[in-house]
Amino acid sequence: MNNNPIGIFDSGFGGLTVMSAVHKMFPCENLIYFGDSAHVPYGSKSPETVIRFSKDIAAFLASKKIKMLVIACNTATAHALPTIKKMLKIPVIGVIEPGSKAAIAATIANKIGVIGTQGTIDSNSYKKSINKISKSALVYQQACPLFVPIVEEGWTNTRIALETADIYLKPLINKKIDSLLLGCTHYPLLRKVLEKVIGKNIKIVDSANAVSCEIKRVLNEKNLFSNKKRAAILTFYTSDNPKKFQKLGGVFFGQKIPKPQKITLE
Amino acid sequence: MNNNPIGIFDSGFGGLTVMSAVHKMFPCENLIYFGDSAHVPYGSKSPETVIRFSKDIAAFLASKKIKMLVIACNTATAHALPTIKKMLKIPVIGVIEPGSKAAIAATIANKIGVIGTQGTIDSNSYKKSINKISKSALVYQQACPLFVPIVEEGWTNTRIALETADIYLKPLINKKIDSLLLGCTHYPLLRKVLEKVIGKNIKIVDSANAVSCEIKRVLNEKNLFSNKKRAAILTFYTSDNPKKFQKLGGVFFGQKIPKPQKITLE
Repeated sequence: MNNNPIGIFDSGFGGLTVMSAVHKMFPCENLIYFGDSAHVPYGSKSPETVIRFSKDIAAFLASKKIKMLVIACNTATAHALPTIKKMLKIPVIGVIEPGSKAAIAATIANKIGVIGTQGTIDSNSYKKSINKISKSALVYQQACPLFVPIVEEGWTNTRIALETADIYLKPLINKKIDSLLLGCTHYPLLRKVLEKVIGKNIKIVDSANAVSCEIKRVLNEKNLFSNKKRAAILTFYTSDNPKKFQKLGGVFFGQKIPKPQKITLE
Repeated sequence: MNNNPIGIFDSGFGGLTVMSAVHKMFPCENLIYFGDSAHVPYGSKSPETVIRFSKDIAAFLASKKIKMLVIACNTATAHALPTIKKMLKIPVIGVIEPGSKAAIAATIANKIGVIGTQGTIDSNSYKKSINKISKSALVYQQACPLFVPIVEEGWTNTRIALETADIYLKPLINKKIDSLLLGCTHYPLLRKVLEKVIGKNIKIVDSANAVSCEIKRVLNEKNLFSNKKRAAILTFYTSDNPKKFQKLGGVFFGQKIPKPQKITLE
């Protein structure tokens, strides 16, 4: 069982930043990724629909004998995590709780900024999760609708990205936050620009790294670490165009990825 | 029958720019708008799903005794227009053909630029429609994924909008187009910025105005013009949050709108 892969899924490419962080921390763990590009974005869809998609993907990944499942998508975590936990007999983790814990650990002033898509911010998922762990934490939220298309256009190092980040982050800076939680899996690609705008006194908390730490905790607790010493096997699946996935996916993963296999689950 | 309203629907707010153009041309025609904000965006959804949504909305509007239906949404036009035409006994028009005709009428060099969302551009709907009418027309397409969020953020007159437009339009300008078709109902709100970037030698063709001309033609042909002389009644429905619709809707419609009624069709 220990040498079985870890399954990771997202509505599209964003979860590949999580997979990249996981791969860096555990270079010998086999990983299987499913990007549901045919149904992206999940953010605007009803909880019932998101749960249905998530269950299909979880069942598919379970059939690949994964030892653990990571829901690397904010919306799917918000809507489907409890259902998938009940459905599978393996450990299942999402992105919201690990990110929230890390943001609380990072703040000294007890003022946390959360940025995400409109859907994530409107759902208050991170705010609720943070205040469930720490009632006294002040959470300031900001939706950043332009960030995803900026990342997907590959414009992360442009003046447009910088000016956009400046507008979005100013209200949070004014609130004197000292911890900024990236509540969207696309945002790690904007890290340099965000650092320029917020300066050195605000710590960036990246869900992707927080999830890796949570995986470490779970694998350790359940004694599920792989005993292999060779480089991991990375497998990719998508529900839409594999060529497009390979091209854009490499940007999110931070290195070239092999062509994924197309899988239709409906 | 002549004093019955014209029905207009879109996946969200964008179609309100069409409604605004129609209202300006026919201030005495009663109009009913349905914005399917619960399901927005249609662009990423399967044709079957878009057809299902469109049929539900068409049936709802037909129950309001509309005399004509305008599908003010590119994706719904591309996927559902033939189905809805068969389904209803009243005239039904979409946005693609009127826009294509107007772009062909506007070009002298026979070089047309089309801008739209990624989904619209990937579908080649406008290119196919233009080349169906004029085989010799050269069509250059450009997806502009940042334009919709820029409009929805209200950033139409910012440097970000200008720089973004500059990047997107440069390849079309280099192709020496002389007619630029706005293939997305959000884009008329960017008209000033687009004009700055393309200069005076390229004509902007706005689908919203083209649709109004097509409505005029149809109402005239079928003898369906209203004989009322008083200001029209404008009615709005949405499938999601009415407050948000009213707030954002006013921006697209160009003037304040009354609070819409929320309707769930599923």
